[in-house]
Amino acid sequence: MSPSPEILTPERILEATEDVLRRYGPTKATVVDVARALGVSHGSVYRHFRTKAALREAVTARWLGRTEELLGELSEEPAKTAEEKLRQWLAVLFEAKRHKAGDDPELFATYGVLIQEASGVVDEHLLVLIGQLAAIIGEGVRSGQFAARDPLAAARAVFDATARFHDPVYAPQWERPEIDDEFRAVCELLLRGLRA
Amino acid sequence: MSPSPEILTPERILEATEDVLRRYGPTKATVVDVARALGVSHGSVYRHFRTKAALREAVTARWLGRTEELLGELSEEPAKTAEEKLRQWLAVLFEAKRHKAGDDPELFATYGVLIQEASGVVDEHLLVLIGQLAAIIGEGVRSGQFAARDPLAAARAVFDATARFHDPVYAPQWERPEIDDEFRAVCELLLRGLRA
Repeated sequence: MSPSPEILTPERILEATEDVLRRYGPTKATVVDVARALGVSHGSVYRHFRTKAALREAVTARWLGRTEELLGELSEEPAKTAEEKLRQWLAVLFEAKRHKAGDDPELFATYGVLIQEASGVVDEHLLVLIGQLAAIIGEGVRSGQFAARDPLAAARAVFDATARFHDPVYAPQWERPEIDDEFRAVCELLLRGLRA
Repeated sequence: MSPSPEILTPERILEATEDVLRRYGPTKATVVDVARALGVSHGSVYRHFRTKAALREAVTARWLGRTEELLGELSEEPAKTAEEKLRQWLAVLFEAKRHKAGDDPELFATYGVLIQEASGVVDEHLLVLIGQLAAIIGEGVRSGQFAARDPLAAARAVFDATARFHDPVYAPQWERPEIDDEFRAVCELLLRGLRA
């Protein structure tokens, strides 16, 4: 990224940070590298992100936020039943994670390191995802399709039971040919368990 | 373990190997250490296990086999329904893994390293466990309690869906106070999905 006369926004800093992380890796990347990529002083970067840790957390939250947005859009489609939404939500989550892991493995590994530093950011991300699931399950309960007494607890259980298909520790398994059948079998069993 | 005039059996060698692994860790432990602990020459050990890798695989298989035996006994109790057996099988698996991780964390970490070397042994272990689950589910189908069309596929799905409660990668989470509620919620959802 070359110097530019544009206004220095948090978003531009985060974009440059991701580029720098991709290029230098999570251990070597510094705030000075980010400032250099933007053609500004490192003081200008620190005006938006007070510490290196804060900058790393923000870029991790932005990365995780992309998946949240993608999934959030799904649950807003009014034409679908709760069961269709739930099935699609789980499939899109798996696909999104698999693409992140497979298309850009270095960036995925980099965020794997950042995630371990930013447990608060990850907890927040998990709450958002489980909240989206709970909203879909709650909708299914109201329409009489699902029987869960506590949609949030049911959402947590569905999320836990599908860990193999979204937790990055399983990324090496996501290229196995059987994985799609295994994913479908777990989803169908869970949907059967949710139905009224 | 001090020298003894007993006959050198594979079982005695494996016991000594586990002791040596516990004492020296997986990187430093050698066949010579095992032989010394038994008061025999390393040639005597090699007569039973042809290579160091074969010895490490055998000790790993023995460690995993203990869990298989414990769980195998459960499915043979004729008084219980398939649903009770399944619930208990999952609870005993979780407890066994949690104890292994919590009571002797160094040995658990050691086997964590050995397991990565012995993928064939682990695959075999997973087949045994999934086979036990399939037998319980098949029994439930025959008695009309469960509805699975393919008990082996259902067993695989139940095993995958409970990974969070038996896969060693999650061991750090097994001490969290919420984990038992989370485990129960996943089990109940899966049982609901299996019922006829």
